[in-house]
Amino acid sequence: MSKKIVIIGAVAAGPKAACRLQRLQPDWEITMVDQDSLISYGGCGIPYYVSGDVSDESELRATSFHVIRDAGFFENSKGVKALTRTRALSIDRKEKTVLVENLDSGVRQELPYDQLMLATGAKPFDLPIPGVGLDGVFAIADLHKAIEIKKRIAQGKVSRAVVIGGGAIGIEMAEALTDLWGIETTLLELAPQLLPRLVDWHFATMLQKHLEEKSVAIFTRESATELLDDGQGKVCGVKTAHRTLEADLVIMAVGVRPRSELAKAAGLDVAPWGGIKVNQRLQTSDPNIYAAGDCIAVTSLITGRETYAPLGSLANREGRVVADNMAGHPSVFKGVCGSFIMKAFERCIASTGITYEAALAEGFDADYALTSPSDRAHFFPDQAVVILQLVFDRKSRRVLGLQAFGMMNDSISARVDAAAGLIAQDGTIEDFGLLEMAYAPPFSSAIDSINAAAYVAENMCDNRLRRVDLDRFLAWMDNMSIEPNWAVLDLRHPLEAAPYVEKYGVDLWTALDYGQVRARYNELPTDKTYVILCNAGTRSYEVQVFLDHLGKFDSMVLCGGLNVISRLGVDWLVK
Amino acid sequence: MSKKIVIIGAVAAGPKAACRLQRLQPDWEITMVDQDSLISYGGCGIPYYVSGDVSDESELRATSFHVIRDAGFFENSKGVKALTRTRALSIDRKEKTVLVENLDSGVRQELPYDQLMLATGAKPFDLPIPGVGLDGVFAIADLHKAIEIKKRIAQGKVSRAVVIGGGAIGIEMAEALTDLWGIETTLLELAPQLLPRLVDWHFATMLQKHLEEKSVAIFTRESATELLDDGQGKVCGVKTAHRTLEADLVIMAVGVRPRSELAKAAGLDVAPWGGIKVNQRLQTSDPNIYAAGDCIAVTSLITGRETYAPLGSLANREGRVVADNMAGHPSVFKGVCGSFIMKAFERCIASTGITYEAALAEGFDADYALTSPSDRAHFFPDQAVVILQLVFDRKSRRVLGLQAFGMMNDSISARVDAAAGLIAQDGTIEDFGLLEMAYAPPFSSAIDSINAAAYVAENMCDNRLRRVDLDRFLAWMDNMSIEPNWAVLDLRHPLEAAPYVEKYGVDLWTALDYGQVRARYNELPTDKTYVILCNAGTRSYEVQVFLDHLGKFDSMVLCGGLNVISRLGVDWLVK
Repeated sequence: MSKKIVIIGAVAAGPKAACRLQRLQPDWEITMVDQDSLISYGGCGIPYYVSGDVSDESELRATSFHVIRDAGFFENSKGVKALTRTRALSIDRKEKTVLVENLDSGVRQELPYDQLMLATGAKPFDLPIPGVGLDGVFAIADLHKAIEIKKRIAQGKVSRAVVIGGGAIGIEMAEALTDLWGIETTLLELAPQLLPRLVDWHFATMLQKHLEEKSVAIFTRESATELLDDGQGKVCGVKTAHRTLEADLVIMAVGVRPRSELAKAAGLDVAPWGGIKVNQRLQTSDPNIYAAGDCIAVTSLITGRETYAPLGSLANREGRVVADNMAGHPSVFKGVCGSFIMKAFERCIASTGITYEAALAEGFDADYALTSPSDRAHFFPDQAVVILQLVFDRKSRRVLGLQAFGMMNDSISARVDAAAGLIAQDGTIEDFGLLEMAYAPPFSSAIDSINAAAYVAENMCDNRLRRVDLDRFLAWMDNMSIEPNWAVLDLRHPLEAAPYVEKYGVDLWTALDYGQVRARYNELPTDKTYVILCNAGTRSYEVQVFLDHLGKFDSMVLCGGLNVISRLGVDWLVK
Repeated sequence: MSKKIVIIGAVAAGPKAACRLQRLQPDWEITMVDQDSLISYGGCGIPYYVSGDVSDESELRATSFHVIRDAGFFENSKGVKALTRTRALSIDRKEKTVLVENLDSGVRQELPYDQLMLATGAKPFDLPIPGVGLDGVFAIADLHKAIEIKKRIAQGKVSRAVVIGGGAIGIEMAEALTDLWGIETTLLELAPQLLPRLVDWHFATMLQKHLEEKSVAIFTRESATELLDDGQGKVCGVKTAHRTLEADLVIMAVGVRPRSELAKAAGLDVAPWGGIKVNQRLQTSDPNIYAAGDCIAVTSLITGRETYAPLGSLANREGRVVADNMAGHPSVFKGVCGSFIMKAFERCIASTGITYEAALAEGFDADYALTSPSDRAHFFPDQAVVILQLVFDRKSRRVLGLQAFGMMNDSISARVDAAAGLIAQDGTIEDFGLLEMAYAPPFSSAIDSINAAAYVAENMCDNRLRRVDLDRFLAWMDNMSIEPNWAVLDLRHPLEAAPYVEKYGVDLWTALDYGQVRARYNELPTDKTYVILCNAGTRSYEVQVFLDHLGKFDSMVLCGGLNVISRLGVDWLVK
């Protein structure tokens, strides 16, 4: 028997569900409604459209075979009805109807449904400050906004921009403006770091340093307090607590909130922060109403708790699960790892699972293995250092997350994707140690970086490797009196270590070449706590084991070594 | 209490075990013996040394911090004794001693052991044909051979080469010779395809086509029957059943065999094909003797059966497991997926798990989902098509393998590595569908290629997608009389389809634009079996579902579409 399906929202989850369901139940009448005229677009591509990498906005709305996904496409090619410029006003759950209004004609109608899907997406959060309504102030809310931004840039109307918000979209927009249009761009982030909650502070710092090298001005712990009017209703500047920045374009990218007013008004369960609550089959509290995409609350596969993951990739997967369940094929969406990846100029940054900071806050016996291996065989010509961090629980030995920062290529994808698959299966450090990464020198090392990170984690759990906290070490370098007993033990080649020894003196910075430790360890004073360092941290660990065995030395390893330190923009020699 | 450990073999598994064990048990006396003077080298880097990508062989023996790993390094830096140029002659299991001989001095000694490790590696298989002993004939057995090959090339002594064996090493060597030295190179492979057992025939064919475009001459189903003498003991040519090839360099790369004579002579269990039998803790049939690396038989995680996987990456992981067990930390090596990846000029080819052909032979209810998606968002500038194939069991829905062929970058690493992790956990099609690949347009699609392949597999299992076998379709294109009822239904843009329609006639090659199917399906004769095709196969599946629903049409989908066909080197238009 044919059923009537109504889907509210036609960007990602909605169209995916509609088309899949039409294939599963070709007889059913499926109607999508969306208040926008442009539907089914790749919103994540907006920064690349603004930058010019994607030349026309229509490419974001086109199939891989270059056909625009508009209402006619859905009707003719997919057998799905799409009502655009049509706003859903209310849901009558008893009568099972949705009241919709055409935004052009004002005509209203009731759409009856047997099953309803909410794919209402998210809306950008607006800062509650004066001036947000000025001309030249944009949130990346939809394609229209992107088109307008690019038009202004192309017309030469933009020479200075301020991006408010240092999340992924803010950073991608800052890159687009700076790199390809040469616009003087400033990025503001209220949190103490970029990409808050997505990566730990040292990863954010490495990213920030690279962005600054690429001429993006960045202020953290700082946001806009007022947007300034040029007297004619156009934005001309941004005020913060510390400065006033000139700007003829302001991008608001301070996060998004689920669009769940409709769900709430219909009496469905909605989390206090706005996410529509769903079960694993993606049913709302009304079993005839499903929800998916940026409007729902999802479950973290790491913590088991409610979280928010507004990503186009998840929306598509969730949409498919909704279609299966509506069609009568039971299907579940268990939750999310929270995989994230981003290009930032010539670097790539990515993470999956949760950060060390989040893991501590969640009450895990959390620790992290920070490493800095090559992204392929160290003898292969175009190899480069990548910074990897495995976050794990010391007690259960479960891996909780992986973060990476390296060159702009796909090598980080490989590690983060492989990790996400294993984390979703509750993979342990030991599983990561044995993970069979495909090996050939142009792609990886014989001991892959992800295996090596797991080995480090294992050595930490078994108390063979004791690390110094990175921030504690940096604080000591700033003010050595806080730990009067500490000294660096530098295992690098004497020529690398020499300038540091010269600056700090041999008492604070002892150089002992790795290859000489077994012969010359007796020269080391035994009354110090050594911070052992080298370039990557591997030699430091070996030497710690050796010193421990002697039983006369106290030491800590600087995990990730100077490869990490140099990427943080710290150089005590030039200070 | 200190123990004595002897390790026979010091290339990959041996050194890894030795160094790890020294850290776990710093008091133990660990001695490695190796008959070679050069030890602890990255054998997989040999083709890149020969090509010149790696300029000096010492780089293959150096740490990431540029120190050569020789006997002195192991002694001074690692606390491990290494006896080079020392051959192990026999094992006395009762007395627990190994008799070794120094190959330079001839001096013999008995090395006592508490625990022994065999890391004797593999030796290249020599073809039993006349002329293998001629000057200029090389197997890639060790670094010395590689050094000699490169020396001859650099001296301009090589203008024509024949590589015997179309496995990974043979192909990498053929690339090294052709690409960087301009040597006229011919590759011979006795099997009907390159990379036999590693990939299915169509992947091998795509690879072969690319190699041929890059000027490597390839003959499959053909091997050397004789190597020809120039009258002065130097090779001057290679005879096969079909031709004689001139050659001043012959590389034998017809596979390797475990070196297990020592194990066999000592009465340890050895498989008939030569692999030393070990349990999951990598103990041989004598619990005091462990074995790891290219000399052992391992277990396939897919079939549960004995297999052979001589790879440096596995050797390292196994070596670590041996060390843990020797030290008293129980540790297991469960088996291998068989992950494999290779650069071939401007392409990358990779696989994990087992092939479709192998899965059928193993008695699985095997099938494959062949797809040809973009390797990143299809609107992103440098995107390119990648060919992916998921092999699965229809009954259990377990994924058995993944193969990929695409551009030379790391995007294939990401898919194969993520797959290997899941396959090792007995991942199903549904697990692959939900695998959370990190998404941003420069790296992936919103629906990642690996998710999409799983969706295809799911649709096949649920009988919504019925594919035509690729080889059956190609046979029909060669001789249409074998299936007189078949016709192509070409869904591509009419301009793409037109030349085919013109050549074959509308009865055999019907063009119907994807967007017009719902409006014009009535024009299609109902007495045909349609092979539906498009570029990638996605539209074809959708149209099959639509036609099935009408109940009047019989059809099959050409999975992977013309993207696959064109990469096979098939073009019926120019025939």
